[in-house]
Amino acid sequence: MIKYNKALKNIKVYEAGKPIELVVRKFGIAAENVVKLASNENPIGTSPVVKQAIMDNADKAHLYPDDSMYALKDALATKYGVEDSNIIIGAGSDQVLEFISRAVLDENSSVLMSAVTFAMYEIYAKQMGAKVLRTLSYEHKYDEFMEAYEMRKPKIVYICTPNNPTGDATSKEEVMRIIRAIGDETIVVVDGAYMEYASAKDKAYAITPQDIMKFPNVIYLGTFSKAYGLGGMRVGYGIAQEELISQLYKMRPPFNISTLSLAAAIAACKDDSFIEESINLHKEQIARYETFAKENGFEYIESYTNFITYLFPDKMDSIEISDVLLKRGVIIRNLASYGMNAIRVTVGTQKQNDIFFKNFLELLG
Amino acid sequence: MIKYNKALKNIKVYEAGKPIELVVRKFGIAAENVVKLASNENPIGTSPVVKQAIMDNADKAHLYPDDSMYALKDALATKYGVEDSNIIIGAGSDQVLEFISRAVLDENSSVLMSAVTFAMYEIYAKQMGAKVLRTLSYEHKYDEFMEAYEMRKPKIVYICTPNNPTGDATSKEEVMRIIRAIGDETIVVVDGAYMEYASAKDKAYAITPQDIMKFPNVIYLGTFSKAYGLGGMRVGYGIAQEELISQLYKMRPPFNISTLSLAAAIAACKDDSFIEESINLHKEQIARYETFAKENGFEYIESYTNFITYLFPDKMDSIEISDVLLKRGVIIRNLASYGMNAIRVTVGTQKQNDIFFKNFLELLG
Repeated sequence: MIKYNKALKNIKVYEAGKPIELVVRKFGIAAENVVKLASNENPIGTSPVVKQAIMDNADKAHLYPDDSMYALKDALATKYGVEDSNIIIGAGSDQVLEFISRAVLDENSSVLMSAVTFAMYEIYAKQMGAKVLRTLSYEHKYDEFMEAYEMRKPKIVYICTPNNPTGDATSKEEVMRIIRAIGDETIVVVDGAYMEYASAKDKAYAITPQDIMKFPNVIYLGTFSKAYGLGGMRVGYGIAQEELISQLYKMRPPFNISTLSLAAAIAACKDDSFIEESINLHKEQIARYETFAKENGFEYIESYTNFITYLFPDKMDSIEISDVLLKRGVIIRNLASYGMNAIRVTVGTQKQNDIFFKNFLELLG
Repeated sequence: MIKYNKALKNIKVYEAGKPIELVVRKFGIAAENVVKLASNENPIGTSPVVKQAIMDNADKAHLYPDDSMYALKDALATKYGVEDSNIIIGAGSDQVLEFISRAVLDENSSVLMSAVTFAMYEIYAKQMGAKVLRTLSYEHKYDEFMEAYEMRKPKIVYICTPNNPTGDATSKEEVMRIIRAIGDETIVVVDGAYMEYASAKDKAYAITPQDIMKFPNVIYLGTFSKAYGLGGMRVGYGIAQEELISQLYKMRPPFNISTLSLAAAIAACKDDSFIEESINLHKEQIARYETFAKENGFEYIESYTNFITYLFPDKMDSIEISDVLLKRGVIIRNLASYGMNAIRVTVGTQKQNDIFFKNFLELLG
């Protein structure tokens, strides 16, 4: 019998947002009537510039991508004012998280994160057999982080800002305070997957790679999956000092993003007007979600992201609400598995949001 | 200072085939004059059926793929006469190799492979701190494998057939003999990345997942990167008994192939005429490579793949030959880093091969 590594006994599998195909298959609802607000995909869709880049490269599917990713790194380097050697590309920023975890974790180490945050931090830690420490609050609070850090000296500290799946953000001031207090033997990951939304909302929450790169142990993560509208293409990146990046490179498999993903990301990088459009739609539509919560007697977490988290009182059950919505073809994310009586809803287009509000109202009776 | 895991000290980085972009940048040769015969990409290009699938899905780049990969697994299950639960999809079969390595290897374990074989076996083993054992021959010989197996009890045994980068294959009889002799505490990987070419050439070398699936410790790997012409899309798969697959699933990150890669692979799976066309072109063109070697006084390894390995006598130097060809815009793979005075050349289209022969003849003077 095969003896698997001990860590495998303790691994939780990531719960993906349910795809439209599944709802079509399972509930027999026509695809065009299914509204997916579960995975924080860009509701505007694929940018025409990106679509064109994909079409232009559709006959290059047989060719391996340029594994140096020269053009993409160059575009990112220009965007952030860093060098190519400060950048590592991942199949989603997820994969950069995997590289970091595999580079430093083992069965005797631990990682520190907030009470409710991105699920992959824990999954990658457990794949390495490491312990997962959490603060008491989902917000990233200096005192809570410092107490756990001092006591346990984790090898990685995660600061997810804006935070997923809660939607709150940590101010630049607070993030810098945490970074400065942590010793350089611990990697601090500042995960800015939704940073474009926070930056647009309030400059006090805007954090750039430049802000944190003077620290040799801090890495900034960004992604093309959210504001850039490339969720399906799996492209993210890490930005840090060259030494840290070169170590992570040792865990990178060759050709870790596809030829079309590379072309799409290069095009997206220069597509500022699409980001602007995404942010504008979002600003306009999120106000409706806030109003809806107030009108219907429940709370929400102030959002710095492209989604909003509704917090339900005891008389409302997030499991039941999610199930009823799902059967109606409205896919949202139930947060029960995070220990919250809450749902996370991606802020969609006007029409998608109309459908969500209509179904939710009917469900409330 | 960050303390990285010990294994990182000993990691070799994969040497990717040089991309056309690099030759264009470095030597100022126009892209249309560069011939890349270095990465065993399908020279016919992207199948029209696949191209259409990509175009049809180009505006879905913002949507995460169906993470259950229901449709792709279903197509593969039908093709091979297995169940969906016997299949795991990877970002290239490379990624399945990574899952296997991470599931069972540690610093006290070893892996066994032939003297010259696919480079990623070693790289993934070293990432886990495991020892790499090699037989004396690049061919997969029963006696050599058994001697090393009995002595060291490796956790993984790799049988790459047809073998890369040499091009030879191991008969089904010999593979089954090795599998039967290995205890079920060791995972045997039968890597059939180029199997479509071997099957078409000689049935005695055809191995299917069905052939090996009665053994709980054996996994078959296949890929869409070669005969199917999807090198740039990064889609491969492992097929084994359900228990082994379910353990590997624990190491799989969500959304490990892109939305367009999924659509492309589903289309490719049903595109038998493209495979036929690829095999036919190959049969016709590889004969020219064999003749060329005979006419110019050097040996080659009988090929069961879409490439051919030329073995040079001492008076010819593979490093020099590769460099001169590269400067002329002809990219092939030098095998010096594998300890061989040899080059590996992908069998291209008639026109690509003409250019290769012309340049090689001029170089020989």
